[in-house]
Amino acid sequence: MTQSDILLRDLDDTGILRLTLNDVGRRNALSEAMLAALGVAFAEAGADPAVRVIVLAANGPAFCAGHDLKEMTAGRAAEDGGRAYFSHVMAQCSGVMQGIVNCPKPVIAEVTGIATAAGCQLVASCDLAIAADTAKFSTPGVHIGLFCSTPMVALSRNVANKHAMEMLLTGDMTPAARAAEIGLVNRAVVADSLRDAVMEMAGKIASKSSMTLATGKRAYYAQREMPLTDAYAYASQVMVDNMLARDAEEGIGAFIEKRAPQWQDA
Amino acid sequence: MTQSDILLRDLDDTGILRLTLNDVGRRNALSEAMLAALGVAFAEAGADPAVRVIVLAANGPAFCAGHDLKEMTAGRAAEDGGRAYFSHVMAQCSGVMQGIVNCPKPVIAEVTGIATAAGCQLVASCDLAIAADTAKFSTPGVHIGLFCSTPMVALSRNVANKHAMEMLLTGDMTPAARAAEIGLVNRAVVADSLRDAVMEMAGKIASKSSMTLATGKRAYYAQREMPLTDAYAYASQVMVDNMLARDAEEGIGAFIEKRAPQWQDA
Amino acid sequence: MTQSDILLRDLDDTGILRLTLNDVGRRNALSEAMLAALGVAFAEAGADPAVRVIVLAANGPAFCAGHDLKEMTAGRAAEDGGRAYFSHVMAQCSGVMQGIVNCPKPVIAEVTGIATAAGCQLVASCDLAIAADTAKFSTPGVHIGLFCSTPMVALSRNVANKHAMEMLLTGDMTPAARAAEIGLVNRAVVADSLRDAVMEMAGKIASKSSMTLATGKRAYYAQREMPLTDAYAYASQVMVDNMLARDAEEGIGAFIEKRAPQWQDA
Repeated sequence: MTQSDILLRDLDDTGILRLTLNDVGRRNALSEAMLAALGVAFAEAGADPAVRVIVLAANGPAFCAGHDLKEMTAGRAAEDGGRAYFSHVMAQCSGVMQGIVNCPKPVIAEVTGIATAAGCQLVASCDLAIAADTAKFSTPGVHIGLFCSTPMVALSRNVANKHAMEMLLTGDMTPAARAAEIGLVNRAVVADSLRDAVMEMAGKIASKSSMTLATGKRAYYAQREMPLTDAYAYASQVMVDNMLARDAEEGIGAFIEKRAPQWQDA
Repeated sequence: MTQSDILLRDLDDTGILRLTLNDVGRRNALSEAMLAALGVAFAEAGADPAVRVIVLAANGPAFCAGHDLKEMTAGRAAEDGGRAYFSHVMAQCSGVMQGIVNCPKPVIAEVTGIATAAGCQLVASCDLAIAADTAKFSTPGVHIGLFCSTPMVALSRNVANKHAMEMLLTGDMTPAARAAEIGLVNRAVVADSLRDAVMEMAGKIASKSSMTLATGKRAYYAQREMPLTDAYAYASQVMVDNMLARDAEEGIGAFIEKRAPQWQDA
Repeated sequence: MTQSDILLRDLDDTGILRLTLNDVGRRNALSEAMLAALGVAFAEAGADPAVRVIVLAANGPAFCAGHDLKEMTAGRAAEDGGRAYFSHVMAQCSGVMQGIVNCPKPVIAEVTGIATAAGCQLVASCDLAIAADTAKFSTPGVHIGLFCSTPMVALSRNVANKHAMEMLLTGDMTPAARAAEIGLVNRAVVADSLRDAVMEMAGKIASKSSMTLATGKRAYYAQREMPLTDAYAYASQVMVDNMLARDAEEGIGAFIEKRAPQWQDA
């Protein structure tokens, strides 16, 4: 795997890949370098058969503070006032977020500290998220004249309209317990047990067939955007193909015979 | 009405049709026979003016355990490895689920025991659901290599993405109280009062104009899939037609005159 | 601003416009006159640079009782039984609701008392809502043979399917605390502190750049209806344009220099 000081990678022997944001001095901001590292990491993890599930964690008091505002401001020096640069950064960032959604491996956010702006979007873009009860979330762009318009794409696909609008229009911090209530994270746990809670969830998922997880995750986001009739036609076909795959035959056989299944890629 | 041993039907004189899954030995699995019985029952109930609201209940400790895995496995013996058979079963099952959504009569799930895989989908597909506090829900296909891809169509239209993903990726059981929090059921009640709670809700609905209920239910699911502007244009037309119907004239007149309305079909 | 006795307007010097439904004798029903007054008020407020945020409040025990049924019934006297008139009223009402969504200024509902039928829709159509703990919500059209089909357009875009269906099919009242749980309002507060809670929220929003709020609100509802890929392409472009706007440059500069920003239109 490609190495990077600002994004640590640790793959254990059960297939759990731990990606740790490690640019503590910049509060793990999504600098160009960090976005590039994340893009590569998810692409490589998606393609690596040894990776079964991904945990996205962070070092330091901030999970992720969003875009790097100094880097963005420096971009204004260009002849076009920064238009080309900002377009590049937004495309890069949106690509990373969609790369998480499109990654065939489930991704769990392990959220300590604050997750703001594109950092909040990062949590919203993961399939699952568990937060320390001390974590906080916000989309504070409105404070600085820059509405969190790309973060809201992910946010509004996780929480109800009025909850999303409150975060976006006020820029207020949402504590972890409230984030759990509104559906931004699966749950909040005491900070000391966060890693255990995440690893327990990751362990369960890592024990499943990677083929099945990839099939299901892809189908989930695809069908979510379809009208009901189309969604059923599509998902029915996915089920048929899944039934005919080796791991379903093995899994169903093992279930009927009351034994543990042996997945093809395990 | 068509009779069936595995799906009992009881229509009371207030227009409440009780359909009871009664294949206890197979945990009320959605066998081909059960799917056929459900398909016929919802079609007949939809067309029967004596039926005003439908309760879907179950006998035995399981509400419904999903597809019949032994039947599915037997299907593999075919020359094509089961492809044609699986396609048939998935089409049949998706047809039943959409038959509930498209049924002009409101459908309430009365959930005791476990509702898993397509059994969980059955609950999600009903318009309303009340669960015993002892009930449990899961989409456990991931345990056996067969992702619950068709159940997720209904599940993801009821609960937030992270909640749906947690059920789908871990296969974990969701207790009734949690199912109520995330919106999979309307509420959880103590098991002893489940039937009373369901019958109270059904009784309220049975006292309404069937024309009005059918109009509203159809419009609900239709507008839900439209952009806002189209949804308003469509729903406005529905309102105009509804205003011109005899039961709205009667109902509004009764309201203004402070008397009970007499519905056309009551 | 256009004056109206049934819709009071009060604009303070911080840019908070308070619109107060004031047809207490008719429970603030959405009569033709009230709809006309609301339509004008939101259009004017949207265009008035002195208005930064809008609070929609009400005098009397009812926030808003929905359409004026006596007016509607009188419409039946026309030669076409009322079809043209009902079409006109529904178009007018749907226009007002969409006028709130399309208004470039954030709109907060301050809900005291009952909000029923199109009155409930009014709350659902606002970007934000805070309710007194004594407030109640319902879509009771089903009681009078006239399903709340246009209210459900807004309702179903705020709450989960089973919650919306329970309100629509039973016509039951939902207390404020439950409305907060299901996402119909942001929260319920003790009645005595309602106005303070709303004004605190409005004050926060009024302190932001109006350009930024308008950009974000428009983008929110636009992207909400797009598939994920389109939503990201669109929102990324919105971010680039926002970055190049004067208020973002000022806001980001002020943030980096740790001083208060001076918005262009403040």
